[in-house]
Amino acid sequence: MEIGLVGLGKMGGNMRTRLRDAGHTVVGYDRNAELSDASSLEDMVGKLPAPRVVWVMVPAGDPTRETVRTLRDLLDEGDLVVDGGNSRWTDDQENAALLAERGIGFVDCGVSGGVWGLKNGYALMCGGSAEDVAKVQPAFDALKPEGDSGFVHAGRAPGAGHFAKMVHNGIEYAIMQSYAEGFELLEKVDLVENVTEVFDSWREGTVIRSWLLDLLVEALKEDTHLDQIAGYAEDSGEGRWTVEAAIDHAVPLNVIAASLFARFTSRQEESPAMKAIAAMRNQFGGHATRTAPPPGGDAS
Amino acid sequence: MEIGLVGLGKMGGNMRTRLRDAGHTVVGYDRNAELSDASSLEDMVGKLPAPRVVWVMVPAGDPTRETVRTLRDLLDEGDLVVDGGNSRWTDDQENAALLAERGIGFVDCGVSGGVWGLKNGYALMCGGSAEDVAKVQPAFDALKPEGDSGFVHAGRAPGAGHFAKMVHNGIEYAIMQSYAEGFELLEKVDLVENVTEVFDSWREGTVIRSWLLDLLVEALKEDTHLDQIAGYAEDSGEGRWTVEAAIDHAVPLNVIAASLFARFTSRQEESPAMKAIAAMRNQFGGHATRTAPPPGGDAS
Amino acid sequence: MEIGLVGLGKMGGNMRTRLRDAGHTVVGYDRNAELSDASSLEDMVGKLPAPRVVWVMVPAGDPTRETVRTLRDLLDEGDLVVDGGNSRWTDDQENAALLAERGIGFVDCGVSGGVWGLKNGYALMCGGSAEDVAKVQPAFDALKPEGDSGFVHAGRAPGAGHFAKMVHNGIEYAIMQSYAEGFELLEKVDLVENVTEVFDSWREGTVIRSWLLDLLVEALKEDTHLDQIAGYAEDSGEGRWTVEAAIDHAVPLNVIAASLFARFTSRQEESPAMKAIAAMRNQFGGHATRTAPPPGGDAS
Amino acid sequence: MEIGLVGLGKMGGNMRTRLRDAGHTVVGYDRNAELSDASSLEDMVGKLPAPRVVWVMVPAGDPTRETVRTLRDLLDEGDLVVDGGNSRWTDDQENAALLAERGIGFVDCGVSGGVWGLKNGYALMCGGSAEDVAKVQPAFDALKPEGDSGFVHAGRAPGAGHFAKMVHNGIEYAIMQSYAEGFELLEKVDLVENVTEVFDSWREGTVIRSWLLDLLVEALKEDTHLDQIAGYAEDSGEGRWTVEAAIDHAVPLNVIAASLFARFTSRQEESPAMKAIAAMRNQFGGHATRTAPPPGGDAS
Repeated sequence: MEIGLVGLGKMGGNMRTRLRDAGHTVVGYDRNAELSDASSLEDMVGKLPAPRVVWVMVPAGDPTRETVRTLRDLLDEGDLVVDGGNSRWTDDQENAALLAERGIGFVDCGVSGGVWGLKNGYALMCGGSAEDVAKVQPAFDALKPEGDSGFVHAGRAPGAGHFAKMVHNGIEYAIMQSYAEGFELLEKVDLVENVTEVFDSWREGTVIRSWLLDLLVEALKEDTHLDQIAGYAEDSGEGRWTVEAAIDHAVPLNVIAASLFARFTSRQEESPAMKAIAAMRNQFGGHATRTAPPPGGDAS
Repeated sequence: MEIGLVGLGKMGGNMRTRLRDAGHTVVGYDRNAELSDASSLEDMVGKLPAPRVVWVMVPAGDPTRETVRTLRDLLDEGDLVVDGGNSRWTDDQENAALLAERGIGFVDCGVSGGVWGLKNGYALMCGGSAEDVAKVQPAFDALKPEGDSGFVHAGRAPGAGHFAKMVHNGIEYAIMQSYAEGFELLEKVDLVENVTEVFDSWREGTVIRSWLLDLLVEALKEDTHLDQIAGYAEDSGEGRWTVEAAIDHAVPLNVIAASLFARFTSRQEESPAMKAIAAMRNQFGGHATRTAPPPGGDAS
Repeated sequence: MEIGLVGLGKMGGNMRTRLRDAGHTVVGYDRNAELSDASSLEDMVGKLPAPRVVWVMVPAGDPTRETVRTLRDLLDEGDLVVDGGNSRWTDDQENAALLAERGIGFVDCGVSGGVWGLKNGYALMCGGSAEDVAKVQPAFDALKPEGDSGFVHAGRAPGAGHFAKMVHNGIEYAIMQSYAEGFELLEKVDLVENVTEVFDSWREGTVIRSWLLDLLVEALKEDTHLDQIAGYAEDSGEGRWTVEAAIDHAVPLNVIAASLFARFTSRQEESPAMKAIAAMRNQFGGHATRTAPPPGGDAS
Repeated sequence: MEIGLVGLGKMGGNMRTRLRDAGHTVVGYDRNAELSDASSLEDMVGKLPAPRVVWVMVPAGDPTRETVRTLRDLLDEGDLVVDGGNSRWTDDQENAALLAERGIGFVDCGVSGGVWGLKNGYALMCGGSAEDVAKVQPAFDALKPEGDSGFVHAGRAPGAGHFAKMVHNGIEYAIMQSYAEGFELLEKVDLVENVTEVFDSWREGTVIRSWLLDLLVEALKEDTHLDQIAGYAEDSGEGRWTVEAAIDHAVPLNVIAASLFARFTSRQEESPAMKAIAAMRNQFGGHATRTAPPPGGDAS
């Protein structure tokens, strides 16, 4: 098929390659002219045969929203936009409605796979009408991994795909935290002498073998005590949205929320909450509290 | 090698089969005469050539403790006992000391694999001196999976193997809870129409692919909404001991502890804590509280 | 001062009484004619001298939003609306903007005190410009408790008061859960023979003495083991919004979130998450799982 | 009554004063001769009339254990030892048994009140037989606060008092964390302009008014943003034991455990768990990870 692809960063660029390797014609557009196949969004649209399919792969939020609005003006009735970025499912509902006003179709697609996707394929979770999804299916087939898994049409309403991907990421946070807590405990005890070997041994025959475990073992083999890595983790929107969605539906999400909070904590130089704890202890018990350290100093 | 094997239940029986399939001679003993190769522990010991290796595969705690004490009287200096059950690492330290008084060696070995171990091999995590471990290595090689992983000598002190296995189980609790929370959220929203297909799609190309995910998909394919399964989970000792060990070492273990507590909660017909919450709400706000339901009735 | 009061339910009715007891003139309106001093909102507005102050005490969300829209049409420039309900702070920002279009002032006010407020006074947390707050100050002074505390002008932007009240409620959830967990532990052990007496003793001289503790002791004296109370707790919006606000600001809120989730769990007849746990256990270990109980039966 | 008092530190010294102010005769012993009324434990015992009562107020664990053993040799049948320190309830059971061998009675007593106890009285939670408790009652009456509360005979078995005090401390951790999380959220938002005033206003008329809130307000008035206090909190044994006791009894203790873990985290300069998270992120996504900062540098 012929397909437009907006956003040729690390993810978009690799996806273009994988689509072309599968024999599809991709007209890519990126603000960076060196990466781009077209001089503008308008130029890209002009190079595609109608009915057109344009896959948007730009950051979630305003960049995606603006791209969708621009495409709404450039595309015609019967064309189709795919949002393959990390949009919140509620954005999909707004974007789909905007495009529907002009008779333009919409499919949202959560994409997992990171830098490994080019070689192994991307896991795809999409939402949209069966008709719209069918129009993109050749591209989905090229992008997904080879086996029976790796693609799902999660629901017919816009946002179903991104919702499924969002929950995937929430689960991912908690699984990572699970291994991380186990790692910390093993590192702290003297009884277990080689933590890397223990994790490596778990890769076969255990209940907890997984791809994330494989990755952690790779990291430990490079840096046994992770001395070169700071104990600091960003969070993307999906983890936050997962907890918010759970709250909306009264779903208790203890471990996913705790995993998200652990990332928040990891980014704090000092915890205001723990200052309050220390202040109360100081008031009631004459417990020794440390005064705040000089800048750059050691608070523990 | 020739090896004694005490306890021929589901796990022990399968391990005997796998050892024999690898060409080893196993003299098994079980209180159930139909399963047993020997009429008594003494008979089993008598059938083994010195120096003897006896693998104990009985429930943790008193049964293991008693078996070790009996073997201490039956075995000779230079013989070796392997505890392959689910003992707490502190029990290993006691049992090793008891046996050492008589010059009998000790290796503790955590075994993972469940009913799948017979076919795929068991993941093994052992503790003990290099000399003692070497004596059991042929059996370890027969029991472990085929690849490079699945076996580790976690440390030289007694208990290192069971400690590693214990942490494995703590991680297992939390990974299971991670998927479970994601499942509940997807079940609760209408947006995602086929939760089983979403989980199935995650088996390839995603960050969260794992053996536990494979198992969950199997279960969902049999019973899409798990209508036939009660939301109830036992916990074995390992999860509890993991949290206790973390407390001893001042390691924050938020998600593993929350996973353990979720199992406790799942087994309560009614929560005394939530009764207290309801009682306070009733006092301060005239909030409607439900009176306790009649037996067998519906509290929610 | 003269003040309009919309909503004469349990809270609004008691507040009217307390305002009148302090010498203020209150024109109350309620859809229930038996409670109302006016035949309609329009009638109520007509009975107030300009510049008017109208205190809205109706359920958060649409009822408050609709009341504000109606008042916007009935009031004049220079008049003022106070939202004393449980609105989300973001609603305040919208309502304030709507009223500002017509030159009508707005003060949001979180009110705590429940059924005890009539006698002891209500704790008040308000947001709005200093000028607007000053116009309502006589009413605030009548409603608040007698001492130095119990009233705060939390910020000049609309929503500051409800935000402070929201955080108050989040803290409240977690403090209640703190006592509740302690209660459950004491109830479970045989060592402590009279849990009610223990809680009662804590009311003086301890670090944890509080008004909530007093309430819990009252409840325990009426029903020692809380046999007549179901372990079931609703949650109002404030607890949820607190966690959402924390997520927006990357604040780790472990205990408040866990307290909210405990309420969610308390309302589930059966946990889908724990069904998933049981299903996985069943797959990997042949662990005995219970089949779902017959309706009305016992799942634990 | 006449009573021996071992350990005249901050707590013990103040308790001696309060006992004497009530008219009791106290023979205190401390290793520090300047504080001591006796030259040795033996000298102290010699100065007491039989049957003797000796209150031990030394650090939990070995110091208390050794003091009890020494007293066991110095005291006679019919004498009585009170352990008023922070012993684990399991220690009480051992100490009581040791003393019982010689016909010496035992009462355990958890004491709350800190530096405020001298003036306001100490909350006391004791365990032991009714006969033994009766022998100490005059001292209890002198030490407790004036009102009806502040003293409880929690159970007849040794350890009942310390168990109740332990749960008190677990609850204390969680209540402190509740306020602390609320403080952090308010500090982070711009909407609320004066956090200290908000907390101060909560001291009357709210659901969350408490003694701990009073203390926090005192601290905030001295140092509005707690700039002079490090976000660092020690934990005593009681918080840990509370979680362990809950695990033993399968009681879900989510907020108390999370509060304990927050203290552990506050004492870490860097989190091994979060290093593992960062390492996995780096492997799968090419996510930028920070390398470990130079000593003294900024990891956030």
